[in-house]
Amino acid sequence: VHGALEAAARGVEVVLVGDRAVLEPMLEAAGVTIELVHAPQVITMAENPGKALREKRDSSIAVSARLVAEGKVAGMVSAGSTGAVMAAAVLEIGRLPGIDRPAIAAVFPVGVKGKVLLDVGANPECKPEHLLQFAVMGHALAQARLGIDQPRVGLLSIGEEPGKGRALERAAHDLLGWGPFDFIGNVEGRDLASEAADVIVTDGFTGNVLLKASETFASWLISEVGGTLTALVAEDPTLGDRLLPEFRNLKRRMNPELVGGASLLGVKGVVTIAHGSASRLAIASALEMTSREADHDLVSKIQAGLRK
Amino acid sequence: VHGALEAAARGVEVVLVGDRAVLEPMLEAAGVTIELVHAPQVITMAENPGKALREKRDSSIAVSARLVAEGKVAGMVSAGSTGAVMAAAVLEIGRLPGIDRPAIAAVFPVGVKGKVLLDVGANPECKPEHLLQFAVMGHALAQARLGIDQPRVGLLSIGEEPGKGRALERAAHDLLGWGPFDFIGNVEGRDLASEAADVIVTDGFTGNVLLKASETFASWLISEVGGTLTALVAEDPTLGDRLLPEFRNLKRRMNPELVGGASLLGVKGVVTIAHGSASRLAIASALEMTSREADHDLVSKIQAGLRK
Repeated sequence: VHGALEAAARGVEVVLVGDRAVLEPMLEAAGVTIELVHAPQVITMAENPGKALREKRDSSIAVSARLVAEGKVAGMVSAGSTGAVMAAAVLEIGRLPGIDRPAIAAVFPVGVKGKVLLDVGANPECKPEHLLQFAVMGHALAQARLGIDQPRVGLLSIGEEPGKGRALERAAHDLLGWGPFDFIGNVEGRDLASEAADVIVTDGFTGNVLLKASETFASWLISEVGGTLTALVAEDPTLGDRLLPEFRNLKRRMNPELVGGASLLGVKGVVTIAHGSASRLAIASALEMTSREADHDLVSKIQAGLRK
Repeated sequence: VHGALEAAARGVEVVLVGDRAVLEPMLEAAGVTIELVHAPQVITMAENPGKALREKRDSSIAVSARLVAEGKVAGMVSAGSTGAVMAAAVLEIGRLPGIDRPAIAAVFPVGVKGKVLLDVGANPECKPEHLLQFAVMGHALAQARLGIDQPRVGLLSIGEEPGKGRALERAAHDLLGWGPFDFIGNVEGRDLASEAADVIVTDGFTGNVLLKASETFASWLISEVGGTLTALVAEDPTLGDRLLPEFRNLKRRMNPELVGGASLLGVKGVVTIAHGSASRLAIASALEMTSREADHDLVSKIQAGLRK
């Protein structure tokens, strides 16, 4: 709710979906009017996503997905069960023609505009043709969300030569060469932070491990830097005024929360999956980002890519 | 050569293997006596490793591996072609009984003692039983190299529950439960920097991508921090004396070069693979580490684990 209020304050038109009895008093206390849609049921993280979705037709996730499907909202953000959001997106909103497997795309805040990595967890095991579909979707996301005109697409592997990698990468390398985008060939782990590719395509196992590892490395390094600076300031408090604002700045730039959330691609709507532990700021960013993706016709861009 | 001199100065008994006509003048210029073994041939990075090894019996990689096999040295370090070092290790030194696939293990400088990740590139596609063998080898490495008595072994996956991951992880989870070590179950990408496991086991594709990505994230974050601090010092030069030594300290702690190199495990000898771009410092660390692994009977520890 705090994130929704923050996004509304930034000009995003927000509709809150959830239990009216819980939400209304919070909005009243904040003295803000936001459109509410009642959804009395909750799908917990522990439930089987498909089963929970069938049984809880009035859960906030199911109701939100129906609002997207009916065109009543431009997109949805959920910090709930990823599996349930995916199931709701496929069952209520529907897959795009030509997409076998929706994928989850994350944006890394590296370089000037950022970089798209997908799949980061929807499909642990993939076939080469799935990677081609991911490439088309990631390319459209880089255009709609990052504002990159001609995104360069790379295939994650363990060497630059086309023959490097597993059977999956060798076959996908051939397929991607025929894709309607600028395919630059194989990229490596190090290219997550290089200027080489704007979109990096991989299976959902590798992508998930990489995403979680980078988040953790970023926080670890930031805490090391923070520790060093705090020790300096403890020795000489006059340094505080100069060091701490810079450090906060740095921390903000590396904060995965500002990215807001990951995009579920391949369904007929804009769906953003936020972290289960998302803060007010993260939810607000996710809502802003979702609104931007809808404004930039993300779904049409993906469809156009699939038709080529 | 500079790295070897540095290691010798630190007390490591070094034997240099290479072209005597090149090495001798360098040692004379440095005024140092180090044992030399003549190896006039060179295997380049571009050559097919197996073919090059068969044809160049007097390459420095082949000669070094034979010195290890004959027990004339306790272990070897090479910054040459990884494929050629692996081929030499298998052909000249030989696989340990019970090991189907030698693996490459990297040490991450996180936590108090560090953390072992393997395989980081030798085997892009693995079967569950390979992961079990990797676990036994990584466990021995954590004991011999990091000095951890009872290393905890984790299986890299995309969720903590045993059913999470690909078919590979689901089958490996069952196997690892029977291993002669403390198996803590699945770990995730974020546990590369957590205290959860001392040894993280995965296939060589995922491990390679992760290793390269973390190296690049570390350098990227360090350059961001460096930029911030340099700007502060430019504004107020009196800050330089206090900030820059701390920054160098931080940089040193995160420097992958200090780790020296990755360990090739599963052969009857201690073999270390250094980066092709390894600096003097990196080579010296690799030599020191190799000597320590030999002193701590790494190979016998692996054999003991395999017999259990």
